[in-house]
Amino acid sequence: MADGKLDSEEAIIAELWAPLAAGFPGAFGLADDCAAITPPSGCDLIVTTDAVIAGVHFFDGEDAGAIAWKALAVNVSDLIAKGATPLAYLMTIALPQAPERAWLEGFVGGLSAAQTTFGCHLAGGDTDRTPGPLSVSITAMGTVPQGRMVHRASARPGDVVLVSGTIGDATLGLALRRNPDFVRRWKLDADASESLIVRQLRPRPHVALADVVRQGATAAMDISDGLVKDFTRLCNAAGVQGRIDATRIPLSPAARTVLSHGGATLVELLTGGEDYEVLMTVAADRVAEVRAMASAVGVTLTEIGSILGAGQGAHVFDADNRVIDFAATGWDHFSTPR
Amino acid sequence: MADGKLDSEEAIIAELWAPLAAGFPGAFGLADDCAAITPPSGCDLIVTTDAVIAGVHFFDGEDAGAIAWKALAVNVSDLIAKGATPLAYLMTIALPQAPERAWLEGFVGGLSAAQTTFGCHLAGGDTDRTPGPLSVSITAMGTVPQGRMVHRASARPGDVVLVSGTIGDATLGLALRRNPDFVRRWKLDADASESLIVRQLRPRPHVALADVVRQGATAAMDISDGLVKDFTRLCNAAGVQGRIDATRIPLSPAARTVLSHGGATLVELLTGGEDYEVLMTVAADRVAEVRAMASAVGVTLTEIGSILGAGQGAHVFDADNRVIDFAATGWDHFSTPR
Repeated sequence: MADGKLDSEEAIIAELWAPLAAGFPGAFGLADDCAAITPPSGCDLIVTTDAVIAGVHFFDGEDAGAIAWKALAVNVSDLIAKGATPLAYLMTIALPQAPERAWLEGFVGGLSAAQTTFGCHLAGGDTDRTPGPLSVSITAMGTVPQGRMVHRASARPGDVVLVSGTIGDATLGLALRRNPDFVRRWKLDADASESLIVRQLRPRPHVALADVVRQGATAAMDISDGLVKDFTRLCNAAGVQGRIDATRIPLSPAARTVLSHGGATLVELLTGGEDYEVLMTVAADRVAEVRAMASAVGVTLTEIGSILGAGQGAHVFDADNRVIDFAATGWDHFSTPR
Repeated sequence: MADGKLDSEEAIIAELWAPLAAGFPGAFGLADDCAAITPPSGCDLIVTTDAVIAGVHFFDGEDAGAIAWKALAVNVSDLIAKGATPLAYLMTIALPQAPERAWLEGFVGGLSAAQTTFGCHLAGGDTDRTPGPLSVSITAMGTVPQGRMVHRASARPGDVVLVSGTIGDATLGLALRRNPDFVRRWKLDADASESLIVRQLRPRPHVALADVVRQGATAAMDISDGLVKDFTRLCNAAGVQGRIDATRIPLSPAARTVLSHGGATLVELLTGGEDYEVLMTVAADRVAEVRAMASAVGVTLTEIGSILGAGQGAHVFDADNRVIDFAATGWDHFSTPR
């Protein structure tokens, strides 16, 4: 069928989507109307849904493979931050015009790479035409032992705040993509520039971190809307106050280069979105153990702050132990133009 | 908060969506990043996803409550046809402009009525802005005893073909909405006209039929793209040939009135979409029992045909036992303009 037409939903399913479901028996080859999910005995199914829309979450004309990768990655990021191991996903895709084979094959390639990386399979979906922009809505499912999902609202006074990986790379990558001249102004070499762009284009949540989160975190969430905004949410959900020390925020070498050349401020890195790292709180006496567990699976966890007493809100302290005033803490679809 | 602003995703979640999740503990009040689904012991989770888009699946300017109802109903319809009892759903909604309170409240009203009728709860979601049309993507989840999902591909030679409810009402309802003058030309009274329009606007899959499907059907699927097209799919999936007798198709009194005044042909009713009834095959020696089970829960099942031998495709026979030639058997997003 390599040269066959892809002019019907059924042809697209059979040729392009079905191979992505081949490893998941409950998908029934995408030839049935529903999928059957059998969670391992004694496990809960953890489910989340996020959509990406052209012109909102990615550029018009974005590489098809990158769109697909990111659509799955942002959902997997939520699962991992809850301690859940990815299992399967469903996808609704709305295509703005009769799909071109090359574009669809690129999309399938990105999705295939992502699901292999994240260890899950396509289990079902819906393919539609739309008069609007391309949009991809994914519902991802993962598993945890029953009752063991790690919550957002369960941080406790005295807990230590940890974050995975590095912060702010994706927001710099986005800036670089919007203005390629920044490469020169920020004195980045090709590798450094590419490393930032990849963070924005192909976020890679740490699947192996799910077990560590589940075994070690008192509370956790992924960082998608900026560290400060998401940490504030975590604190408010628990009814506690939190503090972050700006000097302890883990930054990549590329981000340090940008900062050192005045290309961005630390505040911009702390409020920029799309980090897709895990923010977690850990009992103080378990920090070393939890960091070692993460390290053993190749993920660096960095202590960046602590949970104070009951209350609301988060403060970020600078090197002189003064509170940084954030005019804006991330962005919101409905109140902040991008 | 009744007069509060709904200008942030968080305000919309807290005020409008969270009450829809109140009856489902695993939704955590929509205040966490994922939901936790604990299927009853020994049960599979049956999952399906379908999206509706303004201008494609419903009119621009459609009543908000009807959009919401239908978005959930089309998903529940798939669950029921697989023998699954609805449990929960996730919803991604993309709003084309800053949402107006009245519109959103109407949407919530429709969704609330639908989830009450269908016996499931909102468990999570994603609210976005879009430069395109309103779209609503729902992933619905139901339960069956492990391994007991009823498949599309399992019809057997000798089985009897049954269909729930009546066929063709929604396609007539759509025609009436497009051309209100048909009410007069088709000699419909107000009740009859309304009954057809309701079938198109607020499809009502029979939740109580799920148990009957599971206990009695050898194969089943819902009818969404026209009886003939969907029956052909069911036959092709199983590698069998099927026959339907046109004279046995169950029609509502309103549809009979339209036919009798030449307002539509039976072929149009058999190929029109959006019936959201269940098409099932049943072993010949169990038909009476299965019909009685359905009747006991208020649903009429009608014998309309049978499964013949191995092969492909479906034929519809007229009153003189001649095969009806269908130029088009339903519609496809990619090959048929609406």
